[in-house]
Amino acid sequence: MLHPDRFFDVEPSVRRVAAALFEETSPLPIISPHGHVDPEMLASNAPFPEPTALLLTPDHYIFRLLYSQGVSMESLGVPTRDGTPTETDPRAAWQRFADHYYLFRGTPTGIWLDHELHELFGVRVKLSGNSAQRIYDQIAERLASPEYRPRALFERFNIEVLATTDAASDTLEHHATLRADGWGGRVVPTFRPDSVFRIGQPDWRQALTQLEAVTGSRIGSFADFLEVLAGRRRFFASLGATATDHAVVEPLTRHASVDEAEQLFARALDGTASDPDQKRFEAHMLMEMARLSTEDGLVMQLHPGALRDHHPRVLERFGPDKGADIPVATEYTRNLQALLNTYGAHPAFTLVLFTLDESTYARELAPLAGHYPALRLGPPWWFHDSLEGMKRFRTQVTETAGIWNTTGFIDDTRAFCSIPARHDLARRMDANYLAGLVARHQIDLDDARRMARALAYDLARRTYRFDRASTTGGVS
Amino acid sequence: MLHPDRFFDVEPSVRRVAAALFEETSPLPIISPHGHVDPEMLASNAPFPEPTALLLTPDHYIFRLLYSQGVSMESLGVPTRDGTPTETDPRAAWQRFADHYYLFRGTPTGIWLDHELHELFGVRVKLSGNSAQRIYDQIAERLASPEYRPRALFERFNIEVLATTDAASDTLEHHATLRADGWGGRVVPTFRPDSVFRIGQPDWRQALTQLEAVTGSRIGSFADFLEVLAGRRRFFASLGATATDHAVVEPLTRHASVDEAEQLFARALDGTASDPDQKRFEAHMLMEMARLSTEDGLVMQLHPGALRDHHPRVLERFGPDKGADIPVATEYTRNLQALLNTYGAHPAFTLVLFTLDESTYARELAPLAGHYPALRLGPPWWFHDSLEGMKRFRTQVTETAGIWNTTGFIDDTRAFCSIPARHDLARRMDANYLAGLVARHQIDLDDARRMARALAYDLARRTYRFDRASTTGGVS
Amino acid sequence: MLHPDRFFDVEPSVRRVAAALFEETSPLPIISPHGHVDPEMLASNAPFPEPTALLLTPDHYIFRLLYSQGVSMESLGVPTRDGTPTETDPRAAWQRFADHYYLFRGTPTGIWLDHELHELFGVRVKLSGNSAQRIYDQIAERLASPEYRPRALFERFNIEVLATTDAASDTLEHHATLRADGWGGRVVPTFRPDSVFRIGQPDWRQALTQLEAVTGSRIGSFADFLEVLAGRRRFFASLGATATDHAVVEPLTRHASVDEAEQLFARALDGTASDPDQKRFEAHMLMEMARLSTEDGLVMQLHPGALRDHHPRVLERFGPDKGADIPVATEYTRNLQALLNTYGAHPAFTLVLFTLDESTYARELAPLAGHYPALRLGPPWWFHDSLEGMKRFRTQVTETAGIWNTTGFIDDTRAFCSIPARHDLARRMDANYLAGLVARHQIDLDDARRMARALAYDLARRTYRFDRASTTGGVS
Repeated sequence: MLHPDRFFDVEPSVRRVAAALFEETSPLPIISPHGHVDPEMLASNAPFPEPTALLLTPDHYIFRLLYSQGVSMESLGVPTRDGTPTETDPRAAWQRFADHYYLFRGTPTGIWLDHELHELFGVRVKLSGNSAQRIYDQIAERLASPEYRPRALFERFNIEVLATTDAASDTLEHHATLRADGWGGRVVPTFRPDSVFRIGQPDWRQALTQLEAVTGSRIGSFADFLEVLAGRRRFFASLGATATDHAVVEPLTRHASVDEAEQLFARALDGTASDPDQKRFEAHMLMEMARLSTEDGLVMQLHPGALRDHHPRVLERFGPDKGADIPVATEYTRNLQALLNTYGAHPAFTLVLFTLDESTYARELAPLAGHYPALRLGPPWWFHDSLEGMKRFRTQVTETAGIWNTTGFIDDTRAFCSIPARHDLARRMDANYLAGLVARHQIDLDDARRMARALAYDLARRTYRFDRASTTGGVS
Repeated sequence: MLHPDRFFDVEPSVRRVAAALFEETSPLPIISPHGHVDPEMLASNAPFPEPTALLLTPDHYIFRLLYSQGVSMESLGVPTRDGTPTETDPRAAWQRFADHYYLFRGTPTGIWLDHELHELFGVRVKLSGNSAQRIYDQIAERLASPEYRPRALFERFNIEVLATTDAASDTLEHHATLRADGWGGRVVPTFRPDSVFRIGQPDWRQALTQLEAVTGSRIGSFADFLEVLAGRRRFFASLGATATDHAVVEPLTRHASVDEAEQLFARALDGTASDPDQKRFEAHMLMEMARLSTEDGLVMQLHPGALRDHHPRVLERFGPDKGADIPVATEYTRNLQALLNTYGAHPAFTLVLFTLDESTYARELAPLAGHYPALRLGPPWWFHDSLEGMKRFRTQVTETAGIWNTTGFIDDTRAFCSIPARHDLARRMDANYLAGLVARHQIDLDDARRMARALAYDLARRTYRFDRASTTGGVS
Repeated sequence: MLHPDRFFDVEPSVRRVAAALFEETSPLPIISPHGHVDPEMLASNAPFPEPTALLLTPDHYIFRLLYSQGVSMESLGVPTRDGTPTETDPRAAWQRFADHYYLFRGTPTGIWLDHELHELFGVRVKLSGNSAQRIYDQIAERLASPEYRPRALFERFNIEVLATTDAASDTLEHHATLRADGWGGRVVPTFRPDSVFRIGQPDWRQALTQLEAVTGSRIGSFADFLEVLAGRRRFFASLGATATDHAVVEPLTRHASVDEAEQLFARALDGTASDPDQKRFEAHMLMEMARLSTEDGLVMQLHPGALRDHHPRVLERFGPDKGADIPVATEYTRNLQALLNTYGAHPAFTLVLFTLDESTYARELAPLAGHYPALRLGPPWWFHDSLEGMKRFRTQVTETAGIWNTTGFIDDTRAFCSIPARHDLARRMDANYLAGLVARHQIDLDDARRMARALAYDLARRTYRFDRASTTGGVS
């Protein structure tokens, strides 16, 4: 069912080289420096529930496409937050999913699912309405066995390090548990303070209060705020964090004076901060985060360009992250100039940039990364984390920035069981890309082998500093 | 001269599958749900004139490229509206065209023309200055025979349904004739009210007057206007229409209050509506058209992003649609939010989106179509209706939206004789795309066959509701 | 080391045709109508210095990528203008470069370098830290021989004509020397008056003063300014120039009244011109340059979209053209409307457009070039002058504009020794593109041969009017 040469170019001389390169990178451990796996899952190591709750209802990559074709989220059992009843029979939801599985043909989600079903759960028939219940049974049976507990899978998946994403006020208790209990799997947090930067949002005050609560501080000024954030960053680093992450719609960076920063913060405290205030504040906070990174060594990640919760009715009923985040055109050259001018050549600083706007790959991102020493380009993100999306990234970025200004693959997933499938696909596509260069005599096989290993393992490990002994008490 | 495996990938295992898929889709009837064929042609069934008037002078795809290389439109016999004399000898015009036919190498226009010459007119030599007059004679001879009358060609082309595009005040007399005279070919109108939405244009008043005349109404208020439009939509539907079509430069949608709508309309009646007024009015009318679609079931089509008549001198001398419409960058995510939030999950609503800005395929359109149930993406439009354009569309859209959120192929042509050539090309490219997925083991052959049929036939038929018994008296 | 079929598609039937086409275009002379070679080099014909000063320190394509990976420009011996000491041992700089040569794998810079080392300097081992000094020796030895003098290389490179780029106030003394001394190599200047158009810049006054000095004129008004510019254009043409070149960030064109132009110029003379003034002035000057082109027949080139000197610290220490120019999104449809409406159909006018924003290829540039007779599209520029960049250009432009609305290849280089490598790559990629069309039965081999020759030679020669006897005393 899964062809050993899947996704490689068909031409035999490319396919042969691709297969040879992939044979070398396939066994390498997985570095997962950015993602959304729940650390409690690994801390508690409780068995996974049945198949629908594991694979379907938490994964917006899947129910998004079903919804777009008229299959309601309620009928799939996606939990609501407004009390609307939803399907309670997981088998019925699974059946609906399987009835519509043909929708995923030609999509990366379909590829990942096929991989999980085949490799992880040993399914040997095609998922469809007919096979739905048999396959449900098979997965359910496997999930009951100890070999399918989270930590067992973590080891089976050959994960060397897994980073989670955590709010500024997160207690990181599960990370503490993971470090304390001697299991040994390396799971690290990532500092993501977005919610306390959005001073124009109604829930900002609550986010700030949580931050005060978890730190036992009173935050009455911007100076207080910065000090608390610096402290939280140290705390995250003490539990192994090597990176921060920041999401904005527009990646504007601009330094504010001390006075201006205090005034913005005062308006935030008053509840009178406007949208322009927030934009100004976020632009300054990105500068501050970069500055702190030069001090504490945390790698800074920037994920701009997603307009979140485009569909308010879905947000109201189901909450965020339900497949209704839509990209917008994004400008980097002018927006990032302040930050890059100030920190882009700082030897202690690394900035990893992502985009949902592929028109910026060759136009802005590769030229920027091909100049500023601190800059690295993250892999194709989200909608572009796919066969063709990866091809576009490599062919549009490499000629200007080379491969060494990119980070290697990052799975960015909340679907734990999809991690091996995603890395398998990425390693195949990179092997295939390099095989094309070899077959067209642009590079030789020695170069290709070194580059394949870099893309599969070295670059992610090095960019996110997992190859360094932590200076702040992190896992070594 | 036409290779049976033309346009397929060269690699034998891809080409083999592509040919097998195309063999199945090639005989399927043609669904043409959006185009610009003149219904009078089919109503009168008069013989076509000579070759130049059939193939050259009405087709801006052709004379555009000749003009760009210094061949004047006057010398090709393109009719003027300012009295400037033009070439009156069709053979001389044809000769000039043929002398420059090398300009079309590598273009879809060249492919379509080669197809028409070979398949429809039995030409077996390459068009050039040398062969020009012989080929002219051969086409002219064929056009004189009954087998080349419009209805005979309609049947020979295997067209199941053909939609025309018609102004809001069109009498649809030719459609009425076609329905009344018992021929049986399905030709349906499409409701395109653009001109009455452009309240800032000097010819708006005239367009409104025509609408009043054809409906015998007096339109003194926005409420009147809406009522007349709803009536016209019903009238169009009664003659088989299943869709409306709307062209705007920027696809802004925004609801206006009743008061604001009336005020905008009052300024239009006064002749004082400004450009911002028109923008505001169009944005609201798109909301109203969507609302009416949820009531009368007409599929709504939106074609934004063409800056019409970029070259005023060409407009003045030759009129619109002369190859001087130029695309501009187009934003969908924010512009469509109001409409999609309101109607995007309505079960009776279908919105078909087109673009001339390919950077939006993967960034905005596929994510939107991969979420909103009402949304379908039209095929590569106009400049992008080409081999490479189709490849870019499939590779940039499918991974996020799948194929089932797309409409299948739409020829959008005013060149009746090019319809089979355009569908032939599209079916070949889709077969080839799917063959690539099969050869790389992303899908299996069963999937590919089902998907090929959907792209060639099912999706267009279903999206435009030609598979439904009409609820408003349309052709069943 | 250099494979004869390098860069061609791997599929045998494509590769065979590509090789056949390239065999015909490879021996054609090089037309280089736009570039940045220093004319003094050819006028003096002095031997080149050692390898580092020839290949590394003047070429921002190379040290840019080294800098982006933490190799300082100082350590490479890039000259500073602020007195900062830099590496003085060229062998040490060369060693650093070679140690990091793996960074260039997969980049066009790497391809060009490999070509120069192999073809020009006879190097038969891979450049690396180990081979660095041996290769340095080999190049140095070659450079000492008379066969490696600039004029000998010019002839060996089979350059038919080479255009330089020269400021409005350049004395063109080296061009005069070249014409006077009977060597016979055709080297022509290009008129690039950017600095005197930037009336908002602090160094504008100095640029104007130079212009006054070189012409012995006093420029007290806009009318004076225009007259001096027209005179300079005639002077450039008298030394063989066939083109002008203009760089702006945004390609806005708009006619200003005589009064407005004089007012803008008066503010410039006063030192009070603002940024909007400069924008307005540049927009008008593009109109004036087009007008003068219709009179003196100089081809007008427009290179918009580069935000120069993004990194002030690099500018301060090292000066401009150090790899820190970054593209921005660029709009052509609306910005160029004024100019194209006025001059786009003028029979004596040619405008060559370039872009760093590939999203405009299919959306704006190809539709514009497929309409306006005066418009031609320059080849992939700068960051896009690469294997994949060339593929994107051809596949996104040809279907709408054909190949005959493009200029053929332009190397645009300041690295004299890279000229043959760049044309070799371009001719290979064009041969390969056409071979694909042949193999997929879009064109036949006769068409392909004619098109390959056009792309390699005819189009550049014709677009830049090197096929015409000059009417202004230029080289014939």
